[in-house]
Parts: sequence; structure tokens; C-alpha cells
Amino acid sequence: MLTLQTRILAKNDAFADKNRAWFRGREILALNLVSSPGSGKTTLLERTIKDLKDELKLFVVEGDQATARDGERIRAAGAAAVQINTGSGCHLEADMLGRALQHLKPGAGSIVMIENVGNLVCPALFDLGERCKVVIFSVTEGEDKPLKYPTMFGAAAIMILNKIDLLPYVEFDVARAIANAKQINPDIVVLRLSGRTGEGFEAWYDWLRKEVDALRDAAFA
Amino acid sequence: MLTLQTRILAKNDAFADKNRAWFRGREILALNLVSSPGSGKTTLLERTIKDLKDELKLFVVEGDQATARDGERIRAAGAAAVQINTGSGCHLEADMLGRALQHLKPGAGSIVMIENVGNLVCPALFDLGERCKVVIFSVTEGEDKPLKYPTMFGAAAIMILNKIDLLPYVEFDVARAIANAKQINPDIVVLRLSGRTGEGFEAWYDWLRKEVDALRDAAFA
Repeated sequence: MLTLQTRILAKNDAFADKNRAWFRGREILALNLVSSPGSGKTTLLERTIKDLKDELKLFVVEGDQATARDGERIRAAGAAAVQINTGSGCHLEADMLGRALQHLKPGAGSIVMIENVGNLVCPALFDLGERCKVVIFSVTEGEDKPLKYPTMFGAAAIMILNKIDLLPYVEFDVARAIANAKQINPDIVVLRLSGRTGEGFEAWYDWLRKEVDALRDAAFA
Repeated sequence: MLTLQTRILAKNDAFADKNRAWFRGREILALNLVSSPGSGKTTLLERTIKDLKDELKLFVVEGDQATARDGERIRAAGAAAVQINTGSGCHLEADMLGRALQHLKPGAGSIVMIENVGNLVCPALFDLGERCKVVIFSVTEGEDKPLKYPTMFGAAAIMILNKIDLLPYVEFDVARAIANAKQINPDIVVLRLSGRTGEGFEAWYDWLRKEVDALRDAAFA
């Protein structure tokens, strides 16, 4: 069982390395958005696209077990999107992303947002060749989640604490949630925002701009 | 890849059949609680245990990637619990449950609540030998989830729409959420409740009592 998993992951990693090299050659910032189902990934993307589409080139790969809804929402917001349906599959794999990119054709210097299947477990193990994983964690989920899903919170470079507009109505200790995340991953960047109201998005946009700049500077490194 | 998955599932199903026969022989109602992370499974169990511990014999198997927190919460609420940690694993399997039962030693005529790893994808494929799957779906997750995770909503006998106390603060169309679930699974039983306030729990308790009675009547069938 373990041997098998190792073999599947090794095969995935080879595809991921190819994706990563292609992104690097094309100076594309690729972000792998991971979270529980319903934590607000698509809403986050919709607002980001509406706000930044004149400033940054945004492309989206949507991963879902079923339906084409999220791809349609993204296109309605103003970005090109390719929808992948995984069927019974619980995560995106690097070769799926590679094929999606052939259809999506993201421009040089763009940002490719990959919205993974809503699942706080399996996508942690599958490198897609992204620059980093962005874990979205909504305040309705309980502050213990980083401790209970340490693989994912350990694998992410940035944690977006979402739905902060709901803080008055839920029992959620923000300081403890952040401490739990830092216990698992001391270097994790933490942003707080509300996809619904837009509160906190400027810091997210600044982070995106900084990452795009850093990538451009590193293209020949 | 598919052959392999079939082989793993066949092995799991054999263990599940044994668990099911053991539950039947012992007249135990075994329920497999499945959901996204943070949809309120543990809080639902805590309240159920506090309210029903003098009326029904309740035992709990807790599945998490890491930590012993939920098992501790359940014991503090007043029920015996065994905690399973799956490490990088994304779901419980039937042989894990079989081993947990040896430690838990649930009494004849009891209810065994199995809280699966928070994951709306993988646990759908793994039969544990339970009487049925109970899917918990909180109103903060968006009404499209049954359509986006059809395997799980198709596999469950009952859907608990949780956190209804938050309905005034989120955009969530209850009627559409239920219609989406029924589109995937026309026979699914739907209950609405709030683990936080206790609203709606009487219908859940009535459902449990009815299931316990039905099981007793069917023990020799």
C-alpha cells in the first residue's frame, strides 16, 4: 500500500516538475488553492478577478468532482477558466493540470490560480508544480483545524482566514487559530479577509503583487 | 490505477461485511458520520450524548488525521470513545473500525457513532459496515455542495443541515440546497438543526429512536 502510494506520488512529482519548469520559463505565478469544501475559494477568486483584471493577467483552473458551475462563475467574473471534473477523484494531479494548461493557454507573466477539489487532506500530497499552496480556512470551521489537518497546513505557504464577517456569530478564537497554524508551520503567512464584504483584500492583493515581482526577478536565477 | 482501487475497495468491503454482521448480531446501530472539516460533527455528538445518555447507550469512534482532541471532547460529554489517527490517510477503513471496536467494546443494543475524517470525498467510497451514512452539511458551505460532491450525497441515507442559527448571516438558499440533495438522492432524509443552539434536535433524536427500534425488530430477519 505504501509502496504503491510512493509510486503514484513519484509519477505525479515528475509531471509537477515539468509544470514548474514551464511556469518558470513563462514567468507565470501558479498558486494552488486548497481548502475544505465551502470555505470560499471561488468567491475569493471572483472578487480578486473583478478587482484586478485590469492590472494582472489572471487565468483559472477549476477542480471539482462534478459540475461546471465554478468555471462558469469564474468566466462570468471576467477570467478565462478551464474546468476539470475528477469524478470519484479527491484531488487534482499534475498531469491533469498539464492538460488543462494546453486548453487554458495562460499568457506569459500571468497568474494561474488553481482551485483544487475541496478537501483538506489529499491535495496536500500532490504537488502540481505550483509556486506555493494557499490554504483557505473559514472561521466557521473551528480553530483546531490546523492541528487536525497538519499535512495541509504544513504544506501551505500562506493561510487565508476567510469569512471574518461571520466572527460575531460564531465561537472562533482568531488568535488561537493563528497560533495553531504557526505551531504546525512557523513560517506560514496569515491574512484575514471576507470574500463577501471585501474586507482585508488589499493585503491579499499586495501579497500577489509582491509574488509576481519576485517571480519576475527570479526568472533567470 | 482503477484495478488497484478496485482491489483496495474489495478488501475493505470484506472487512465491512464482517463488521456489519457483528453489529447485526449484537443489535447495534452503527452510523457513519461524514462531512467537510468543521461542519459540526463533534458538536452534534456532544449535544446528542448529553441529551440522550440516560436513554440510549452511545459509543463513539473518532477518526482524525491527527490529535486526540475529539475523543477527549466526547468522553467529557459522557460517552466512551476510541480515537483513530489516520496520519496522512484521508478516510477510515473497515479494518481500522474493527480494531477500534475491540477496544471500545460497545454493549449489545447500543449505538456506535463513527465520526469519519472530515472529507466530503474519500469516505464515500469506503463502507465500514455501518447501517448508513449520515452526511452533515452546514449552511456556511453553500447550497451547491450536493451537486459538487455527488458521490457522498448519493451514498448517505440522511442529510443533516447544520448551523441553521447562522442562516440570517449567510447567503444560503435552504430550499435549493435540499432540492440539490434530492436531485442526487431522491430518498435522502433531511433534518435541519443547530448544534450550537439545540434547535431541531428532537427530530434527530426521534430518527435515532426509530432506527434503534427498526434494528431490534430486524435482528432475526
